[in-house]
Amino acid sequence: MGPGPSDVHPRVLRAMATPLVGHLDPEFLVVMDDIKLMVQETLQTKNDLTFVVSAPGSAGMETCLVNLLEPGDEAVICINGVFGNRMADIVERCGAKVIKVEADWGKTIDPEAVKKALASCNPKLLAIVHAETSTGVLQPLEEISKLTKNAGALFVVDAVTSYCGTHLKVDEWGIDALYSGSQKCLSAPPGLSPVTFSQAAIDVLDNRKTKVQSWFLDLTLVKNYWAGAKRAYHHTAPISAMYAMREALRIVLEEGLENRFARHQKNHELLRDGLESLGFEFLVEKQYRLPMLNAVRIPEGVNDVEVRKRLLEEYNIEIGGGLGPFAGKIWRIGLMGESSDANHVNMLLAALKDVM
Amino acid sequence: MGPGPSDVHPRVLRAMATPLVGHLDPEFLVVMDDIKLMVQETLQTKNDLTFVVSAPGSAGMETCLVNLLEPGDEAVICINGVFGNRMADIVERCGAKVIKVEADWGKTIDPEAVKKALASCNPKLLAIVHAETSTGVLQPLEEISKLTKNAGALFVVDAVTSYCGTHLKVDEWGIDALYSGSQKCLSAPPGLSPVTFSQAAIDVLDNRKTKVQSWFLDLTLVKNYWAGAKRAYHHTAPISAMYAMREALRIVLEEGLENRFARHQKNHELLRDGLESLGFEFLVEKQYRLPMLNAVRIPEGVNDVEVRKRLLEEYNIEIGGGLGPFAGKIWRIGLMGESSDANHVNMLLAALKDVM
Repeated sequence: MGPGPSDVHPRVLRAMATPLVGHLDPEFLVVMDDIKLMVQETLQTKNDLTFVVSAPGSAGMETCLVNLLEPGDEAVICINGVFGNRMADIVERCGAKVIKVEADWGKTIDPEAVKKALASCNPKLLAIVHAETSTGVLQPLEEISKLTKNAGALFVVDAVTSYCGTHLKVDEWGIDALYSGSQKCLSAPPGLSPVTFSQAAIDVLDNRKTKVQSWFLDLTLVKNYWAGAKRAYHHTAPISAMYAMREALRIVLEEGLENRFARHQKNHELLRDGLESLGFEFLVEKQYRLPMLNAVRIPEGVNDVEVRKRLLEEYNIEIGGGLGPFAGKIWRIGLMGESSDANHVNMLLAALKDVM
Repeated sequence: MGPGPSDVHPRVLRAMATPLVGHLDPEFLVVMDDIKLMVQETLQTKNDLTFVVSAPGSAGMETCLVNLLEPGDEAVICINGVFGNRMADIVERCGAKVIKVEADWGKTIDPEAVKKALASCNPKLLAIVHAETSTGVLQPLEEISKLTKNAGALFVVDAVTSYCGTHLKVDEWGIDALYSGSQKCLSAPPGLSPVTFSQAAIDVLDNRKTKVQSWFLDLTLVKNYWAGAKRAYHHTAPISAMYAMREALRIVLEEGLENRFARHQKNHELLRDGLESLGFEFLVEKQYRLPMLNAVRIPEGVNDVEVRKRLLEEYNIEIGGGLGPFAGKIWRIGLMGESSDANHVNMLLAALKDVM
């Protein structure tokens, strides 16, 4: 019940233990095609360049930025937590200029501030975190998407924690590039990052003047392995992890996206009521709270590390500590995918009551 | 029986299906420590910076090069196959200058040519492939290591295919940076890349003037997750793949490195005798042949694609085709890890006889 990885369904564990085939085996290409279709469906997109990076969510973040940016470009980066900062760091490593839009940790990014930042430069893209795992903030995206389009820039979204846990509509919301992770609300093991690029993003990629700085993440090469007639060898795909992802995606679609989102919301409310009756306060204003990542202030006089240690050792329950300015000040309680479950909520509440 | 992934032992599949813990869980840190010790033992090194990149071998290659090179540096790259070319491509993406030492595909790199190249520039490193998977060449390393040290450069080695299948002595051979893959002679699923850095390589890393261009592969950050008192969060490690790697490493050490190398050699000889009696010729001179990757010329009048397709569809056996100048001209038959086995050799020889 930390900020991910979440629990994994036994069906996914079993799928992962299937004997291997080669990464160019016709049977494995079918697995890739199945995954692509289901990632499209769960992201609500028709983007043809929809695929999975063979590495964790951070590599998905890097994939989006290194493929779209070149030295000298300008990028507006929205920062209200750890992952916005990480995007800014990567943009600088691309030799591009970062224009920051900042908000206090625990608050959402203000569209007015975005508007000013976009007007102050010649932006190639704007990047923003949909679900900030370090603070529990759900960022509304539609208004900022429109502002970004009006400024002629690409709209890039970090959906690592929101994907498969709350509404996320790539096409309808005008998202041009998006990355997620396998280990949050999808409930597959960590290590893979679903990514999608719109046609506008592909056009930027196709018109680059310089090579993408990472060979491993270079989509001009990777896309020929995921699509195209030839399915050209690029790198050896993580076969077993892909078996697991296919099974996890099937489980999501069997449940249905709307049912899954409702379940995440319901269990969040159950946890919220329980925590509030124990005297906890949420960090984030009600309307911007994530259902899958609950950030609460640690009550006065409670020892952060000791309580988390006892929860882990005596109750086998992991919850997350705070990061950055919130280290020692908040806990982050995950209710993601298979872990978004009334039994999980009840056992944590009972254990917390005992320990505190 | 292609150029990897190899078959995986049922113990490894079972280990991979273990329920997940968090990437900062004390139990998972023990898994990481176990893996580090066993990678050190199998690489015959005492290097403290020995760890596993959370992505396939190509990302291990990129890790070594992006961490050691800065714009304007000069690097000698030895090229006699696909993977030497890939290294040169990555070096250029680092903004460094490539000085090529080339040999015909299927031949080894000549130490005399290396000597000349090292003398012609101010080399920061020399990189070479130990086992060229595209051609089946085993490259002797010790003499070239000495030449590289004499020129004041770091000695960087691609051991993706040789690791755990033939002699590889990191410390004794003076290797400064090395990467491998999980899916060849180690017989774990694809997706991870063991890497080791010597103290001289760490010194170069510590004295960089610029940031490493990849955030995900930046060892100044990654090393604090793998070592150091704090075990600081960097990215979410692929927990399940690491369970699998630990079990695969245990199996290697239970067999013993010397026994494992002897087994690879013995099964190579069994295959060689069988192929030669069917009229096949090896691409590589006898003394430089890899035991785990057998490259043979496709006999006159035999249809490459059709035979491989029939092997796959009728016999469930995958072998690899040729790459680059050898496309349609050679086959690459893998005998790696669990797949290096007399039964595999016999079933392939019988099937080939039938099909041809």
